[in-house]
Amino acid sequence: MVPSRGAGGAAGGDRVAAPAGPGGAGVIRTVEWQDGVVVMIDQRRLPLEEVYVRCETWEEVADAICTMAVRGAPALGVAAGMGMALAARAALRAGAADPAQGAGAGDVARFRTALQAATKGLFDTRPTAYNLPWALKEMERIWTRDDFSPAEIVAQMESRAMQIYEDDLASCRAIGEYGAGLIQGEQPVILTHCNAGALATAGYGTALGVIRSVHARTPRLRVLADETRPLLQGARLTAWELMREGISVELITDNMAGYFMSQGLVTHVVVGADRITANGDVANKVGTYTVSVLAREHGIPFYVAAPFSTVDLSLSEGSAIPIEERAGSEVTGYGESCWAPVGVRVRNPAFDVTPARNVTAIITERGVAFPPYEESLRTLEVS
Amino acid sequence: MVPSRGAGGAAGGDRVAAPAGPGGAGVIRTVEWQDGVVVMIDQRRLPLEEVYVRCETWEEVADAICTMAVRGAPALGVAAGMGMALAARAALRAGAADPAQGAGAGDVARFRTALQAATKGLFDTRPTAYNLPWALKEMERIWTRDDFSPAEIVAQMESRAMQIYEDDLASCRAIGEYGAGLIQGEQPVILTHCNAGALATAGYGTALGVIRSVHARTPRLRVLADETRPLLQGARLTAWELMREGISVELITDNMAGYFMSQGLVTHVVVGADRITANGDVANKVGTYTVSVLAREHGIPFYVAAPFSTVDLSLSEGSAIPIEERAGSEVTGYGESCWAPVGVRVRNPAFDVTPARNVTAIITERGVAFPPYEESLRTLEVS
Repeated sequence: MVPSRGAGGAAGGDRVAAPAGPGGAGVIRTVEWQDGVVVMIDQRRLPLEEVYVRCETWEEVADAICTMAVRGAPALGVAAGMGMALAARAALRAGAADPAQGAGAGDVARFRTALQAATKGLFDTRPTAYNLPWALKEMERIWTRDDFSPAEIVAQMESRAMQIYEDDLASCRAIGEYGAGLIQGEQPVILTHCNAGALATAGYGTALGVIRSVHARTPRLRVLADETRPLLQGARLTAWELMREGISVELITDNMAGYFMSQGLVTHVVVGADRITANGDVANKVGTYTVSVLAREHGIPFYVAAPFSTVDLSLSEGSAIPIEERAGSEVTGYGESCWAPVGVRVRNPAFDVTPARNVTAIITERGVAFPPYEESLRTLEVS
Repeated sequence: MVPSRGAGGAAGGDRVAAPAGPGGAGVIRTVEWQDGVVVMIDQRRLPLEEVYVRCETWEEVADAICTMAVRGAPALGVAAGMGMALAARAALRAGAADPAQGAGAGDVARFRTALQAATKGLFDTRPTAYNLPWALKEMERIWTRDDFSPAEIVAQMESRAMQIYEDDLASCRAIGEYGAGLIQGEQPVILTHCNAGALATAGYGTALGVIRSVHARTPRLRVLADETRPLLQGARLTAWELMREGISVELITDNMAGYFMSQGLVTHVVVGADRITANGDVANKVGTYTVSVLAREHGIPFYVAAPFSTVDLSLSEGSAIPIEERAGSEVTGYGESCWAPVGVRVRNPAFDVTPARNVTAIITERGVAFPPYEESLRTLEVS
């Protein structure tokens, strides 16, 4: 994984275009496929530096996911798909025979074994976001087919990875439109938590996609961004994205949301999701649950924006969602700074589950689901 | 204000003793009067460095309060009292005549003018904590008396400042005992926000006083400490205090409190207060309100621990409490680190108000007040 500095340096291929911001501040290149290299903006270093990582193997993609160079459930799905495409290329190169000319049974078995290993390696990176296993399953449907040669499988997987990217982009735009239809008022003030923006997706964003679409209709829109400890995705990424587009944003610490709601200064909450279960429970960045309780306390609508690939109908409710617990060092400081006493014990769940009863609606690219979610999500599934 | 390093260097006088922690880790010297110098542990630099600031003038005390070298409502009351004692000494020294031998009317007027200026200067430091104006009023009762000479007033003010210190210490111990009577169970898990500890008082603490007293009876007690952005008093001060005494503490980010409550892992909440109004509304560090909403959502008792000097019966309800808004740079980073985009707009209210309906009981040194607080606080007032 070779870091390269500056958008120009790494973004040569431009095979897939990300959407330009309305402010003209330029494309946010979250994850891109550039001729056999997966290029990602390094989100750990934003907003201070705009640096890109170039992944030439699936292991480098897995490392970028583990270390959160890339994050955000839909973006993880895109990255996992591209990571599998890299794995397929590598497995093909490693084949002794030229598989395009008709591989032996042993070569095909080795090809599949390599893709099985890559699937497991990418699956094991982070447990909560559903888009990641969803994308791996999409790719598995291709590489387990008997009627394709390895070379054909490689081509199909690359094509599917591109499609996941394009679909995600289109989904975000549709989510934005559906969400904008829900958010009325002359001067809405939307509170959001973490970053469900262009940086969490192929582009445009889910929660920030809604915000972008509302802003296009209602320029007086204002956004309150929770900073989102411990990794500060709100302070670093959401603030950066919105400022680039000229959307009015104010940064607050997570513990201030209740104060602003109690003062009548928040009209809507919009957040993303890492996994949504059949009953409408929502796993998202830790702190989302608290925001949902506060929103209900104050009668403020609480919207979840996510592509349908985030919906896991195999789980009946949120208590079954695996919650990642990350290193304590994320909580004892940030970056090079450590401010807590040496040796202090820490808890660091990266996600929490918001029960369906706190969710006003779930905004997907297929339409808006309202309670009861068991029915509305099933209806969207077959739509 | 001259910083000096290490407890030994600055703590020569030892005129007032702070309580030793049960773990034998030594005294926490929050604010001390040492022969005409107010010595404070510099809380901005804890836990990484144990450095003391020595204030020889009331202006230096005011600066220490503004910049939060000292913080915590009861400690601000103690510091303000000592600051006024310094002001009285200086005003006496500045008198042309020897006031002890009978000052002229002009000298007395100048003496009072100087104390009036010091009162205003100390009052203007921070607006929310009630103990600060309370202590200034206590001192004003002395320096406005006609029947004392300036020299007598100086002696009386020094004595009253010492008394405020000693009373605060005794109050904290009584609060601890009352609180421990409320918190039952074999293995309580108390969540606390910010630092209402020895460092927020003359010693022992209010919320942490309760925790210390519970721990003395129930060593299996565990504490969850909210880190308390933006200034991280929980991560830096509460964790440090509790670790020194061998009390089991786990550090979490503020936005995790809801998650742990939803998992049934919190049995009680105990916090301090900066001001309590006649109806039982409680101003405290921003985020306290959110914790109170979460506690009520989960049926967890929410206790406020504070000396009666925090109770402002002149205000009928919390909406009348002035809420300090501090510099945005506290939110865009911490210390030398800045992680938010340059130029981002920030909101930074330092406090919020928890409505009485969310408060299970208010624990004071005079006893425990239960709802309705209009009655119970008035009863304690005359007790």
